Amino acid sequence: MKKYGFGVDIGGTTCKIGLFETTGQLVEKWEIPTNTCEEGKNILPDIAASLHSKMEERKIGREEIVGIGIGLPGPVQPDGSVSLCVNLGWKNMNIPNEMKALLPEIPVKVGNDANVAALGEMWQGGGKGCKSLVMVTLGTGVGGGIIIDEKIVAGTHGAGGEIGHITVNPHESISCNCGRKGCLEQYCSATGIVRLTKERLAKEHETSLLDSAEKISTKVVFDAYKEGDKLAGEIVDKFAQILGRTLSNIACVTDPEVFVIGGGVSKAGEVLTQVLEKEFQEVAFPSCMDTRFALASLGNDAGIYGCVRLVLE
Amino acid sequence: MKKYGFGVDIGGTTCKIGLFETTGQLVEKWEIPTNTCEEGKNILPDIAASLHSKMEERKIGREEIVGIGIGLPGPVQPDGSVSLCVNLGWKNMNIPNEMKALLPEIPVKVGNDANVAALGEMWQGGGKGCKSLVMVTLGTGVGGGIIIDEKIVAGTHGAGGEIGHITVNPHESISCNCGRKGCLEQYCSATGIVRLTKERLAKEHETSLLDSAEKISTKVVFDAYKEGDKLAGEIVDKFAQILGRTLSNIACVTDPEVFVIGGGVSKAGEVLTQVLEKEFQEVAFPSCMDTRFALASLGNDAGIYGCVRLVLE
Repeated sequence: MKKYGFGVDIGGTTCKIGLFETTGQLVEKWEIPTNTCEEGKNILPDIAASLHSKMEERKIGREEIVGIGIGLPGPVQPDGSVSLCVNLGWKNMNIPNEMKALLPEIPVKVGNDANVAALGEMWQGGGKGCKSLVMVTLGTGVGGGIIIDEKIVAGTHGAGGEIGHITVNPHESISCNCGRKGCLEQYCSATGIVRLTKERLAKEHETSLLDSAEKISTKVVFDAYKEGDKLAGEIVDKFAQILGRTLSNIACVTDPEVFVIGGGVSKAGEVLTQVLEKEFQEVAFPSCMDTRFALASLGNDAGIYGCVRLVLE
Repeated sequence: MKKYGFGVDIGGTTCKIGLFETTGQLVEKWEIPTNTCEEGKNILPDIAASLHSKMEERKIGREEIVGIGIGLPGPVQPDGSVSLCVNLGWKNMNIPNEMKALLPEIPVKVGNDANVAALGEMWQGGGKGCKSLVMVTLGTGVGGGIIIDEKIVAGTHGAGGEIGHITVNPHESISCNCGRKGCLEQYCSATGIVRLTKERLAKEHETSLLDSAEKISTKVVFDAYKEGDKLAGEIVDKFAQILGRTLSNIACVTDPEVFVIGGGVSKAGEVLTQVLEKEFQEVAFPSCMDTRFALASLGNDAGIYGCVRLVLE
């Protein structure tokens, strides 16, 4: 008999839901809105109703569901409880207990969204076949997820994989969102790369990037880099230097099989992993030299894959 | 019936051996020489003979031994094999298989010496009661061991916990033993602290450290710091800045419950963890602020404790 699992990736605006076979095959995915009114008290009931009606529609019984994996934007305790989740309006909530009342007899596991995305990429994405990896998500910020022996490293305070807040420049004068100065994400996020590019463009006159000055994105920068633009080259080199060095330092901590690079910046494609791998090899601890670099391949679905993988352990 | 385990910490000169009850109680410890002649071919037979005679002496039967844990100075594969261990003369050897031929029917587990020391400190030492920690050994070099969920993070290439080779100063001109420049251990090992102190003493005239200039040790530096010596203060502050910052970055990766500080430098005592904790709190990612600092408490026995803990998993 086929067995199934649900992956539910709760974001501040929508909940992404996936129905999977336990083999990793995605059967169907859909979204429902996240209703954050009244301290988000309807979020879990809405999800439960959606799962329930999907089971009825597909005539899947409770005994065929191995579990529901849930990802959410905040730190999660080992028992699946949350003390504070600002984006959802939640305070002091035990998710497995709440879900058990709504959909009895189905096991529930919960994880942080960045961490479950890393688990998803390990299972069916850019890190498929690996048991340990570091996922680096280059978007508005720099997110991370550490997987060791096929398990998420959540950390004592839910800060496992918070690699965007590694200090790379103690002399920075501008503050990061976290209140400290010189965090990795101030330089290597999409936001950081665009900010640094605009600062340079204000002084620079000979660069193809000026043609796109109004709509500078990391893709524009990496495209100009591939075309040989000098300024874009300097910006990409600096980015690779900072991130490559940081990843070489992380390799001295958990020594992963592969670094999986995702997020908006990864739309630049193979050129991104190439520049990072080159820089990494120049500075890495000798035994870690052959650590692989791969692009994330599941995009926004990484979360639902990782969520369902949580309940297959 | 009481059950026992052996912990065997193989060093380049001696093998430390411990007989433990599975409760963690050390029954007896002793040492035998490490015979590195002829590519170390006698090391394991010597150990097996020593364990065998101890079992006869104490009338302990094979069925009472849950296993033998072995630590050694080099990277170890997950199956307990070693491709190269320079200090012991070993090449391409599978330790559990060799031991099985010498002492049949007793399970054998193998780990890297720095990693098993970390496991030992978690089990019965400075990190007792914790499930995840980072051990920092400040000696000739800076060693490390990462424990997550009571398990060693050995790493894909055996470089898990090689925190002494995190780059802290990319502008350094002097080379580290690893061939790269600016590694943590160039500044924060006993060797590094003494080197930096001697450099300063060559230019400095008003410091109590001059009285001990011939026999500068980290203990002398920390003692002078406690007495309020200005130069010692600068050296200790710099040390704490570099190591505290590095540990705050490691907290953004594995987010441990506690940092356990061991090695020769830790003879300085509580003052060491106090200066590190103070610096850490100034620079740490907010959620990790309350991460604890503890002194290692097992000294040279950490290895045999960790070795026997390996076979209790």
